[in-house]
Amino acid sequence: MSTPESPAIILFAHGARDPEWAQPFKKIKRVLEAKRPGAVVELAFLEFMAPSLADAVTKLASGGHQSITIAPLFMAQGGHLKNDLPNILEALRAEHRDTEITLLPAVGDVDAILDAIAGWLVSATAR
Amino acid sequence: MSTPESPAIILFAHGARDPEWAQPFKKIKRVLEAKRPGAVVELAFLEFMAPSLADAVTKLASGGHQSITIAPLFMAQGGHLKNDLPNILEALRAEHRDTEITLLPAVGDVDAILDAIAGWLVSATAR
Repeated sequence: MSTPESPAIILFAHGARDPEWAQPFKKIKRVLEAKRPGAVVELAFLEFMAPSLADAVTKLASGGHQSITIAPLFMAQGGHLKNDLPNILEALRAEHRDTEITLLPAVGDVDAILDAIAGWLVSATAR
Repeated sequence: MSTPESPAIILFAHGARDPEWAQPFKKIKRVLEAKRPGAVVELAFLEFMAPSLADAVTKLASGGHQSITIAPLFMAQGGHLKNDLPNILEALRAEHRDTEITLLPAVGDVDAILDAIAGWLVSATAR
């Protein structure tokens, strides 16, 4: 059972007009929930899809979570993570002063994930 | 040493205005080259960055490669992969009739990679 003391994690993705686009993030959410029973995992999107990051943070903060971790599920660091996200975070931290908001690196900055992608490519291109 | 018989792989990513955005793809290229000595690995981008997918395919086909594998390094399937890419592929296959062009699934459609992302999230959010 999740409580305000349970880890609260937001999987933050770009979003797209196509609803099917969210499938991989829903799958990561399911796997993460299975691997971390009790954790509260929410999806949030930069654009085109709901909820926004602000809505997801507000929901968790309203539920009593005092510590929220945001995981940007982006392949790489560009304008969205370097410009948009810091502005969003600054506003959220000003609004939720009692909530500790932690930002994880983007997927593309995690060597273990890049290695997993390269490893899969090796097997997928084997002859 | 790579020859026309060496596997030819194109890592196809979205692209961005920020040059740093390409770093994760360059790193995947390096890891893949290390794991598959002799393979020819090229980067290509949908927009904002060069080379285009067409330029990368033309380069490899001109080098004698008769079989090219394209790996879309996108987090999820949306309009880019469902609409843009099939159109690009159709034109490329019409132009390079002697070249077999194979398309791999997107990163977000590969369970092993989603599991690796979820696994990393478990360790990154451990208390």
